[in-house]
Parts: sequence; C-alpha cells; structure tokens
Amino acid sequence: PRAPQQDPPIEYPLCVTLEELFTGCTKKMKISRRVLNPDGTTTSQAKVLSIDIKPGWKAGTKITYPKEGDQAVGRTPADVAFIIQEKPHLNFARVGNDLQYTANISLNHALCGGSIEVPTIEGGVVSLPLTKVVNPDTRKIIPGHGMPFSKEPDKRGDLIVNFNIHFPQQLSSQTRSQLTKLLPVACASHC
Amino acid sequence: PRAPQQDPPIEYPLCVTLEELFTGCTKKMKISRRVLNPDGTTTSQAKVLSIDIKPGWKAGTKITYPKEGDQAVGRTPADVAFIIQEKPHLNFARVGNDLQYTANISLNHALCGGSIEVPTIEGGVVSLPLTKVVNPDTRKIIPGHGMPFSKEPDKRGDLIVNFNIHFPQQLSSQTRSQLTKLLPVACASHC
Repeated sequence: PRAPQQDPPIEYPLCVTLEELFTGCTKKMKISRRVLNPDGTTTSQAKVLSIDIKPGWKAGTKITYPKEGDQAVGRTPADVAFIIQEKPHLNFARVGNDLQYTANISLNHALCGGSIEVPTIEGGVVSLPLTKVVNPDTRKIIPGHGMPFSKEPDKRGDLIVNFNIHFPQQLSSQTRSQLTKLLPVACASHC
Repeated sequence: PRAPQQDPPIEYPLCVTLEELFTGCTKKMKISRRVLNPDGTTTSQAKVLSIDIKPGWKAGTKITYPKEGDQAVGRTPADVAFIIQEKPHLNFARVGNDLQYTANISLNHALCGGSIEVPTIEGGVVSLPLTKVVNPDTRKIIPGHGMPFSKEPDKRGDLIVNFNIHFPQQLSSQTRSQLTKLLPVACASHC
C-alpha cells in the first residue's frame, strides 16, 4: 500500500518586533482546520498554537507543526508552518546580530564635539561622547548592545551608530567669511 | 518535411565605453565558424562582422546576425548575437539617459561657496558655481549634458552632480571654540 499523500505545508507569516526577538516571547496563533468525524464527514475546528520564540531568532526562522492541516479520508494532513518576520523598527535596523542606529547631529556637534544619547533595544540609552570630528562616513561601535546570538544567548552583537549630519540651510556672508578662515580649503584627497 | 533544427543563439558580450555609446561607433568582431563543403565535410572559416553602435544605446542592447553559427548537414546554423556591455567609467555612472558625477569638495567650499569644474562626457568641463550651502544630500543638475536618447539623438539626458564633502580630520581646540560660535547648535529636524 502506498503511503497516504500529503499536501505541501501551509505557511503563515508571523510578525514580531525587534524587542520580542530580543527578549524572546510566546505568541498564540489561532488556526482553523477541518477534522475528520467517524462517519467520514469533516467539521471545522479552531485550535490555538503556542509558539515559543527564542531570543535572537532571525527573520525567516520557520516553526513547523506537523500534520496540523485539514484532515481528509486517505490523506495525511499538511504541516502548518510559521515564518518569523521582523516588524520595521523606528530606531534600529538589524544586520545579522548587530543593530544599526542613525544619530541626527548638527554640523556644530560634528565639528566641535559634544555627547549624544543613543537608544538601546532594552529601552535605555547609552551616552556616546564625540571627541573627534565626525564626518558623513563615521561609524561608532558600542560593543555588546546588539541582538543576542540565538545559539549563545549570553553573547550579543554590537550597536553600530551612523551619523546624519545636518548642515545649516544658509549662512550669512559674514559667517562665511569667518568660517573660510577657520576651515582648510583643500581636502585630504584630490578635490 | 520538418524544418531544419536550429541551435539557440550564440551570444557574445560586447564591451564599449560610455564615450563610444555617446558618439556611436563601429566595432569589428572576428568570429570563427565551421562552413559546409560540397562533400559534406566542414572547414573552419574566420569572418569579421562590422557592428554599427548607435549613439545612446544602452547596456543589454542585442544585435543579432542570423545564421552566422556553424554549418552542418541538415541543420540551420545558429544565430550569432552581441550584447552591449558598458565598461565602468572613472567619472560617470549612467542611470538611464542621465550621467551621475560625484564631486569631491572640502567642507570649506561646501559652506563658504566657490566654483567647481565638472567634467563632461564630451571631454570638456562645465563650471558649476556653489552659491548656497552644499550638504551631503545636495544634488545639482546640469541639463542636457547626459547621454543622447537613442531614438531622438538630438535630445540628451542630464548630468547630475552629487557631492562627497571632505571634513577636516582634526581641528584644534581653539578652532573648535571659534566654530561653535558661528554654527547653529540645533538642526532643523530633531537632533
């Protein structure tokens, strides 16, 4: 006798926030399936699946519940699978286990220094002093403030800070004539 | 009787410079093919194809020479096709019919103004005055200095200038204290 045929898995997206992927969480998902009665008819049945999301899981992680699809005579019910999707985050972009944050700073702070507060995924802030000139390509790394490694939850990626430097929209001719005395005219590479 | 079978086209990349696509040009390509003799044997034969490249053609343009492939008894020779590829250019990136150029300027010029010389695909330069503050997102458009439209060679796309602003690598504390008086501390959006 041949093995009963099985339909391909039924896949559902499962949207979770970066915070939920940071701490781990449990998601309850209600599915509806047809269940076989002894007389061969089927009845619709709701079922709640409890999905245990581990800290550090990534988008694309698939959790499969075998044979939770519709029942039918002579067929193996399909598997039901949930695929983790990351909700876009207001502050952070995830790259592997690292988090990227873009700090908006004024040109004044970029040149003259200061200190900025960088938000963390835990909901706190880290103070980041700007001691050197910040340019548009500057990246600062705050080690260990990224996402946990799913297989070693004690380890964490980094928090990477990029800078969006806001220039003044206009400058008076007086300010310009003073600035031009303070800033080098040539640049390091060929201009 | 069935139509003689034909193999799929033989495709060759044809690398051309942006300058060649700007002016149009003729490329001679030597191909080698097997030619059928009256007794059914074949002989290798070299042939030079002259390819007329029109101004404004884009990467991916395909020029087909029908039945220029190997001859064999009872078969239709394959077509030979050349596919235009753009050689990377030192100064310009092509986007459709526009050309993009990145100007390297010092922060001094970005803030205090000046004039830069922008190279053109014809081999000349266009002078571009910087009258307003240039920031990292500034784009300037020099109309009509892009690539010709292949179907209307009298019309041309634009030359788009982006800026790579070179910041001073370090500033003395004295310069910093003067700069901080000249530049706004806050930026237009939330910092």
